[in-house]
Parts: sequence; structure tokens; C-alpha cells
Amino acid sequence: MRSVRIGLLGCGTVGGGVVRLIAENAAANAARVGAPVEIGPVLVRDPGKERVPELDRARLTTRPEDVIDAPDVDVVVEVMGGLSPTRGYVERAIELGRQVVTANKMLLAMHGPALVAAASARGVDLAFEASVGGGIPIVRVLRDSFASDVIEEVVGIVNGTSNYVLTRMLKDGLTFEAALADAQAKGYAEADPTLDVDGFDAAHKLSVLAMLAFGGYVHPDAIPTSGLRAIERADHEYAARFGYVIKSLAIGRVVGDRVDLRVHPTLVRRESTLASVVGVSHAVLLQGRALGPCLLTGRGAGDLPTAVSVVADVLDVARAKVSGQTGLLTKSLRTGQKPTLPIGDVVGRAYLRFSVYDRPGVLARITGALGDARVSIGELVQDGGGDADGSPVDVVMLTHAAREADLTRALAAIEAGADVARPPKMLRVLGER
Amino acid sequence: MRSVRIGLLGCGTVGGGVVRLIAENAAANAARVGAPVEIGPVLVRDPGKERVPELDRARLTTRPEDVIDAPDVDVVVEVMGGLSPTRGYVERAIELGRQVVTANKMLLAMHGPALVAAASARGVDLAFEASVGGGIPIVRVLRDSFASDVIEEVVGIVNGTSNYVLTRMLKDGLTFEAALADAQAKGYAEADPTLDVDGFDAAHKLSVLAMLAFGGYVHPDAIPTSGLRAIERADHEYAARFGYVIKSLAIGRVVGDRVDLRVHPTLVRRESTLASVVGVSHAVLLQGRALGPCLLTGRGAGDLPTAVSVVADVLDVARAKVSGQTGLLTKSLRTGQKPTLPIGDVVGRAYLRFSVYDRPGVLARITGALGDARVSIGELVQDGGGDADGSPVDVVMLTHAAREADLTRALAAIEAGADVARPPKMLRVLGER
Repeated sequence: MRSVRIGLLGCGTVGGGVVRLIAENAAANAARVGAPVEIGPVLVRDPGKERVPELDRARLTTRPEDVIDAPDVDVVVEVMGGLSPTRGYVERAIELGRQVVTANKMLLAMHGPALVAAASARGVDLAFEASVGGGIPIVRVLRDSFASDVIEEVVGIVNGTSNYVLTRMLKDGLTFEAALADAQAKGYAEADPTLDVDGFDAAHKLSVLAMLAFGGYVHPDAIPTSGLRAIERADHEYAARFGYVIKSLAIGRVVGDRVDLRVHPTLVRRESTLASVVGVSHAVLLQGRALGPCLLTGRGAGDLPTAVSVVADVLDVARAKVSGQTGLLTKSLRTGQKPTLPIGDVVGRAYLRFSVYDRPGVLARITGALGDARVSIGELVQDGGGDADGSPVDVVMLTHAAREADLTRALAAIEAGADVARPPKMLRVLGER
Repeated sequence: MRSVRIGLLGCGTVGGGVVRLIAENAAANAARVGAPVEIGPVLVRDPGKERVPELDRARLTTRPEDVIDAPDVDVVVEVMGGLSPTRGYVERAIELGRQVVTANKMLLAMHGPALVAAASARGVDLAFEASVGGGIPIVRVLRDSFASDVIEEVVGIVNGTSNYVLTRMLKDGLTFEAALADAQAKGYAEADPTLDVDGFDAAHKLSVLAMLAFGGYVHPDAIPTSGLRAIERADHEYAARFGYVIKSLAIGRVVGDRVDLRVHPTLVRRESTLASVVGVSHAVLLQGRALGPCLLTGRGAGDLPTAVSVVADVLDVARAKVSGQTGLLTKSLRTGQKPTLPIGDVVGRAYLRFSVYDRPGVLARITGALGDARVSIGELVQDGGGDADGSPVDVVMLTHAAREADLTRALAAIEAGADVARPPKMLRVLGER
């Protein structure tokens, strides 16, 4: 039987891991696929650079067409990242009828529907396990294991950098800046950490997860996204007093015929399993109508976990190629625009922190404004009241479930008062009514 | 295109769920499989009994051959349980070239290698996601997602009844007997709870998990198994003082060219994710060489979770049938006898509890006996020392890593003394060297 030939776009650490795993498990791969799997042409920028020893250097090329257009390449694996020129390469590979595997969450989040439509029309598969969740096989679980169930909710810790920063702040009392600097020193955060700590990376991943879980597409720009920069050590301490920890979550829920997608720091019950996911780990909690809750946790992004996910996809699409049944995976994806719930209509509990000058009546004014907006208070703590030096004090509370539009209105009214030292802070509380 | 026809062996609550899920998702199933999927003959004991409304009663039969031998049945789904006559039915279905899906862990644990060999020789698939882990897609994750990785360790909370009993003991201070009675009252435990609380059900599941994870077969009888009956409330309290909780775990590890498989109550660090898995939930923690740790948790056994897992398998093997590529899943399973590590050679930390008469020198004798056996003590607590009434007191300790044979020898020596009121108790501590 003819072997299945892999063309690689990119051969950094992930690509090198792919080459290595395919070489190491040749017999098992062949049994699984129904034909041997071999590495064909490999696109690199610098052919002189050192590579994993399993890679035959004669395969290296700097011309993308040597990979994409080679008639004997069955599967194109994209591990170069970025949107340009990557998008064009992937489009052309699909057009030429190649099976495609990509690890590129940004590409999928931004252009997923067009790529899926092209693959579907051409009858090929587009597989992307490695795009979300690092070492967690979340794409496959959503696609295969929940195939006959309806997913009602997806909650993920999907950005390892953010989770690391929050963990360091919580456990070691670091400031946000110090925790971020530490993450950068350890290589967990990029020099420009914006994608990570401002939530955009998580929003890309949530867009991909939502497509799989809820059968529809939402552009990352339509996902309300907030990052970690506003979180202070004091917030961790107040959250702890209420029995919570702060996690940066990507949240997706079905609400009627809409989806509610958001990325933001969130209070999570301290004794919950999500709270126990610390450091650079990832976690995704699914809620299936029939299957109930199912949580997957694992190592966050990393070269080897990503390579394992890529190779699992390669074996899948190679097997489809050998059996002549390509395109089935892609056909089952639904990528129509999914209407989203306006953030103002989201209902949930909230953590509110006010910094106020301790004047008579200030608490009455705050609680009055909340009451006027139909926001009721569940718990309240007030710290260091009656400072003689006139410096502001914190008033912190957990509300009962409230509409976000009502909360926003109340906070605006409260902020307008002269007894408030700085804008109120609001964080959402996970999943309690 | 001809539809894929399912024959059902058994139609209790799981079977009913399968019928319902296949009816409800007909369009999605067809897209996924490449042909419509329909329910054919259904073997039941009592055709008069009420069934789910989606089931066409004309399909019911009390004759197994109507299902197994029917030439138009492509996939036989076994959800009747038990070893006899089930084993014969499954064997015959394989012999006739049917694709087979089963939820029967005992059948797989006891006769897995023969069934896999038969399926492999006949070129058909034998799928069994529903046999382990309830709502956790652990079989698929081991088979597909870790396809290119090497699994070094599997640790599971795989018996919901045991986990429920331990949770009630820990959180509510119940005795073992009271917690078990509560589990029975809630329908979580059978009238005869032996399979669950004595660890045998977990050993069956561990045998199945080990076959997938480590590529070899170990009969459940070769898995050292101990249950919960010896656990007292005081053990939970002492464990807590050391920072641990007690969980009933199925543990599988690769040690050289052997596997170390065991089922027993185990001390788990209180802040670990496994410790946060409470009630009837299940969890499986995998350690992949490349992928690192990956934890899956979800609802334990239950009719709907099990049905979702069965249907996921049905769609897989139906797709293989349509594509003419049957038998690939089975071929990749390795079922040769795997040599096991003798329990005496297991190395780890242990929790030891001695009930002693508080006489001079008793602690010196115990620590001396441990030292003679090269067991060193990490932490020690002694309660209510010097009771005037002469009733025994507890001496509890955590050892450093020790060989189990050494521990056993030391405990035998200690038990022989007149100052010991009852046999020492030993529990293992999870994964610390």
C-alpha cells in the first residue's frame, strides 16, 4: 500500500515534535491509519538551522509550493502560526484537495467559517485539535464524544499565562506587575503580553470552542473580553473572604437561541475543581444535556503537548484519506453566524468593590443606588472604617443574581457621587443564580 | 445510500437512551456517518414492558438470533450486561462480521483479549467507551488523543459508589456503614455492594484502562485490590491532619517492562485536583510522556452518560462500516499478557496507624521495628497519650518512601508485640517519593 505523505509548513519546536513522534511510532501509526505515514517536504525559513535528528534534511525547502503543490503530499500540517501568509497557504492546500491539520487558533477564530466551507466544498478534512487547550483533547471530545449530546455550557481556563499570573498573585501575594514579570522571566509570557493578559487569546479559543460546542460561529470581536490588569492583590483577599478565588475564564452558554460568550476575570468557588487548576494548566468544563458536567484539565500550551495533538489529528485525517472517506469531519461542523446575547442581558451574581470616603450616609447612598436598579446585596464587608486621615476605605459586596445592564446603571450612579474615590470595580461570579 | 442498521441486545434505561439519542439526532448522525443510522431489532426479556416512545415496538424480539443473525444488522450494541449469556452473543456477533459496541466492563476485563483477537481476525471493530468512566470519554482519549504518546501512569476514581461513601464519611462524619446505607437509599449502591466497595468493579475498569494505556492485558485477579470496609472516621481525621484526604483509587503505572496495577484506598494531597472530585463523580488522571498530566472528570455511571458514550461508539463503528474500513480500531489494541510488578516491590509513602497500650517503650519498639526494616518516618502524631483507664491510644505516622515488602515485614514484627491492641493499619499515599 502507498504510504501517506505529510507536508509540513513550519518546523519550529512543535514541528520538530511532530517529526519525532511520527518517526518514533511508525509501526503503531501504520496499524492505525492502514498505511505507513511518512514526512515529506518541510517548509522552513532557514534550512541551515539545527533540527531534530529524525528529520531528513533533504526534505527541507524554503518554497511553500514545494509543500502545498507537491502532488504526492496527502496531508498538509500547518505549524507556522500567524495569519499572513499562513491563511493563503492553508486555502491553497484545501483547494488542491489536501487533508489539512492546523494548530492555529487565531486563523480559525478569524477565518474559520470560510476555511471550513472551502474544505467542505472540496470534500477534505480540516482538523485543529492543537488550536485549543494545549494538552487537553478538547476538540476531539466535543466533536466525537459528545456527538450525540447537546452542549449547554463551556467554561475554560484556556490561557496559561493568565492563570499563572493569577496563581502567583493569590499564592505568593505578588502584584499583577510582579507576577507578569515572573511569567515573562520563566518564558510563559511573551515580551508583549497583550494577547494573553488582556484576554484576546482566550477569546480566539472561545470562538473555536463555541463553533464546536454550539454549532455556530461568533467572531472574536463580538466576544466581550476583559483582561487582568485591573486585578489587585486586595481583590484576591476580598474574594477569599467570600470563599472564592479569581480565575480568568472563557465562558460560553446557550441562552435560548442565542449564545452568551465572554472572557473575563471571574470569581469561582474555592472548593470547586476549577479553583484547583493552578499555574500554567488549562481546564475546560463542559455541561452536556445528557452527559452532565465533564471537566478536562491538562498542561497548557507547550511544544510537546501541542505536537501530540497535531499528530493525533494527522492520524485521523490520514486514515480518512486511506479509506477514501475524507471530508466527514468537516461536514459535521456548523459555521453559520450565531446570534449572541447582549452583555447587558447577562444575569448573574457580581463582586463589587467601592473605594469611598468614609462620610456619613455613603453606604446608604450605595445600597440605595443598587436597590433603585433592582440589584440586591448578598454579602458585604467594609474594611478599616473611619480612617482619621481621610483616606478612602473599601466597601466590597457580592450581589444576588442581577442583570448586567442594571448593575452598570447602578455603578454609574454611584460613581457620580463625590464620596467615591475611584470608579467602582465589578467582577462576575461563576454560575450561581 | 443504504442506512446503517443497529441491533440492540438489551433495552433497559441505557438501551432506551441509545434509541432516543439516535432518533433525536438523526440528521447529524447521518452527516457524521455518511449514511442514515436506524434502530433495527431489539432483544428484550419482556416485550410487554413500557419503552421510550421513540422505539418502534415492532422491532422488539425475545430471540437473540433475531438481532445477532439478522443479515441486515450492521452494528450489534450490547447493553444487557453480565457474562452469561452475553459473552456468547458478543462472540457470535463478531463471528458473523458485525461491528460491536459494548458497555460491559466485566466482560472486557474477564475476556477482553479473546474478544479483541476474534474481532481483529474477523476484521471488525469492538468499541467500549461506555465500559469505563461513565460520562468521561476516557477510552477515546486514550485510544485517539494519546495515539502518538506513551502513557506512563493512570490514576482513576472509577467507582462512584465508593467515592460517594468516602465523601459522606469525610464531609458529614458518617461511619462507613451509615454512608453505605445512605448510598443504597439513594440508589447509588446495589443491595449487594461487594463489587463496588470491595474494589472489584474498579479492578475490572483498571484492567480495561491498562489494556488501552499500557498496551497489554492483566486479568483482574492479578490486580491487588482492597476496598473501603476498614476505613474509619478516625482515618479521615488523621489524614486531614497530615494534609490529605482518602480516596479509593485505581492506580496503574509503568515500571520498567512491567506494570504496577492496584486498587486501594489512598491518601491524596488535599489541595490536589483529585481530592476535589467528590460524590458519585469519576475522574481519571493520565500521565503522558509528551503530553504531561491530563485529568478528566465527570459524572459517574448513569443511564444517560452511558448512552451518550454508547452512541458515540455506534457513530464511530458505523462510519467505519460505511467507509469499508472496519477493524482498524481493534487492530491497534494490544492484548498480550503484561507482566505485573509484585506488590512487595512497590515503593511509596505509607500511612500507618497503630493502636497501642500506652506503656513505656512502646513508641521506641515501633520506630525501632520500622528502622530495622529500613522504613523511615516522615511525620507522626500520637493522640490522647497516657490514658488512665488503660484503653489503647492511636499512634499515626506517614513514612518516607519505602518498599512495600519492608513495610509488611515491619508491621508483622510490630503486630507480634503485646503492647499492640489490634493489627496495624496501612494505607498508601499517592505518588510521592
